[in-house]
Amino acid sequence: MLIKGASLLQAGEVIRDQNVLIEDNRIIKIGRSLKAEDDEIIDAKGMLAIPGLINGHTHLAMTLFRGYADDMKLMPWLEEKIWPLEAKLTPKDIQWGVKLGCLELIRLGVTCYNDMYYFMHETAEVTREMGLRAILSGVLFDMRPDLMNEAEPFVRRWKDDDLIRPAIGPHAVYTCSEETLHKARDLAEKYDLMLHIHLSETKDEVDRSIDEHGKTPVEYLDSIGFLSERVIAAHCIWLSPGDISTLARRKVNVAHCSISNHKLASGIAPLDKLLSAGVNVCLGTDGASSNNNLDLFQEMKMTAIAQKCAHFKPDLFRAEDIWKIATENAYAAFDLDLRLQEGSLADLSLIDLKKPWFCPRPLTNAVSHLVYSMLGGVDTTIVNGQVLMKEGIIPGEEEILEKSQEQFEDLVTR
Amino acid sequence: MLIKGASLLQAGEVIRDQNVLIEDNRIIKIGRSLKAEDDEIIDAKGMLAIPGLINGHTHLAMTLFRGYADDMKLMPWLEEKIWPLEAKLTPKDIQWGVKLGCLELIRLGVTCYNDMYYFMHETAEVTREMGLRAILSGVLFDMRPDLMNEAEPFVRRWKDDDLIRPAIGPHAVYTCSEETLHKARDLAEKYDLMLHIHLSETKDEVDRSIDEHGKTPVEYLDSIGFLSERVIAAHCIWLSPGDISTLARRKVNVAHCSISNHKLASGIAPLDKLLSAGVNVCLGTDGASSNNNLDLFQEMKMTAIAQKCAHFKPDLFRAEDIWKIATENAYAAFDLDLRLQEGSLADLSLIDLKKPWFCPRPLTNAVSHLVYSMLGGVDTTIVNGQVLMKEGIIPGEEEILEKSQEQFEDLVTR
Repeated sequence: MLIKGASLLQAGEVIRDQNVLIEDNRIIKIGRSLKAEDDEIIDAKGMLAIPGLINGHTHLAMTLFRGYADDMKLMPWLEEKIWPLEAKLTPKDIQWGVKLGCLELIRLGVTCYNDMYYFMHETAEVTREMGLRAILSGVLFDMRPDLMNEAEPFVRRWKDDDLIRPAIGPHAVYTCSEETLHKARDLAEKYDLMLHIHLSETKDEVDRSIDEHGKTPVEYLDSIGFLSERVIAAHCIWLSPGDISTLARRKVNVAHCSISNHKLASGIAPLDKLLSAGVNVCLGTDGASSNNNLDLFQEMKMTAIAQKCAHFKPDLFRAEDIWKIATENAYAAFDLDLRLQEGSLADLSLIDLKKPWFCPRPLTNAVSHLVYSMLGGVDTTIVNGQVLMKEGIIPGEEEILEKSQEQFEDLVTR
Repeated sequence: MLIKGASLLQAGEVIRDQNVLIEDNRIIKIGRSLKAEDDEIIDAKGMLAIPGLINGHTHLAMTLFRGYADDMKLMPWLEEKIWPLEAKLTPKDIQWGVKLGCLELIRLGVTCYNDMYYFMHETAEVTREMGLRAILSGVLFDMRPDLMNEAEPFVRRWKDDDLIRPAIGPHAVYTCSEETLHKARDLAEKYDLMLHIHLSETKDEVDRSIDEHGKTPVEYLDSIGFLSERVIAAHCIWLSPGDISTLARRKVNVAHCSISNHKLASGIAPLDKLLSAGVNVCLGTDGASSNNNLDLFQEMKMTAIAQKCAHFKPDLFRAEDIWKIATENAYAAFDLDLRLQEGSLADLSLIDLKKPWFCPRPLTNAVSHLVYSMLGGVDTTIVNGQVLMKEGIIPGEEEILEKSQEQFEDLVTR
């Protein structure tokens, strides 16, 4: 496949009028005068090619719950709305929820997502079918000991897939015993996998951990030997200075979810201190039930402006800092090279710049436009060398919208 | 004009399968079985009709500065970047900046905007040409005493226009003397106009006012008889309890600009206290130079989630509260009835619901989707009975994008 005449965003800089040659699932050559040795040519004149984005923390099947319950306190929201719905979930609900989520991610230029939820086989199958890349963890809770039995078979089934990477997902310190956390860690070590966990999301979680263990959640996890560079910890809002040092020392990766944290009123994460300490932070949208969309561009804007305001520092958290967090840091966290350079995986999207919010477009400040102005315009999304959306068209979109609508109605009236 | 088969959002509730008959600039009939007595029929099957949105505070010509200077402290940003550019502004810059801004507003379902800037004749002419409704104030500064001379002629020229409503725009208490503020107020009273002012945007503004006048900006304005229901005050972040009571007692309208306030790190406005005190608050995007787009939907989301988080109250600032602020409160502030009911002005937009972010769409929670999930999909925008965008097409869009790009390049190299 040859992408012709695109402006390329590489490491925050725009290089004009470039051709990108893709073979199989890799970018093999980038340059001005490449010839097509392939049938498929994508005319990218007037387009900005950007590297694939990674959603660092979500629960994709929950896209089916979008707008079902908003504006509630965390516990009533979970107990009265989310958990009763989740208790009724079938594989078919998951399939349509994940399809709907994939549709949205493709439309928004996201080529990979990091998930934790139920029915991971179905999630993996649908994600493959939709063509996206994903790191998938079946959630582990003590309340549902059967889930642990599913973890290893899931890993074995998917560990050699080129799009799906299995991981292990103990839910959080307040829902998993030390034994569960140890089993999760051992499984991750045995198969060299990531560990995906919610960490220090609410003040209540920290208070409970101190009551129960005499330690913060981070201290507790460190004391049981759980923390390492294979951990991706979502949220990380309520951290002591010692917690931050520990996360840095153990090389834990953090998925920061600004919109969800604000919508659930969980708090504002100490992003400045995490970054200063050298913690690798990337961005996630969390589930559409607490966001309520999956837009990483909106997440970037919110992260930048919320942090600026929290510290009264308009000159910190600059667009280029946020862009690096959303791209380079995510590639480091998930050990994926989507860098839009020769040899990288062919995960990228083309953005049509003929939109009012990209004008004026001196292209010296493309990153500012992506972080602060972006209101849509992804024209083409390519994952692993496959075109998933072209000229804004995703095959089968209408059917997915209809069927997931029907499936949601079936779920809530079941 | 007959709009056929739309779902209608009226006072937060969705009514399905409605026809809307528009004659001249008014909605004259709404019902299920209306016949067309007109040539123009708009098929709105699968669309949600929403009332026209009002951008309560912006500087539309500054859309030309989008992304020109970000991530700076307020004073260097103004002194090194914005003011030098503004010193070079010509009527032609304003014309293309306003055209570009109107284009974006039309695309985002905004049918009216409240502006304060330079070259208001040009702004008014271009806005009329583009078909939008606007309340326009030439900015008044003591540094530029000539601007005061332009105010009354501008009012006389436009006071009987059906789309453009002139207003008086003294910039702020730190840039206008008591004499200027009195002249502005007297002019507003003479012609029965609104007064548009920046108020208590930064802590520094308040500190300076206390140093200079021994009063907060609100106390000072009240002491000189400036405050009344004709005032629309932008920002209102740094307010004492007494200030809030005064704003309520004087029936001042507030334009809250959450995104700009966060991006410039000005602070978080005490929206809960303003609303409890009975102050009429609506929403504005501020200029695209500090936002960097003009999307009121994004403003709604940011307002809701920032306020929830600031007060650790996820159950406050609900989607329906924010929707009311963005619509009903704006209609009250600007004395405009855009309510999507018989007799109202025909300002509305049609939203194509076949987007992933509107799915599932039980239509019982349309307001949640508009406030929290919305990522585009405005298909048709109608202002004053005229169709400005249909099926996503705005005549002349490409030319505006090209010409405003050229104009920006000319401005920065001039």
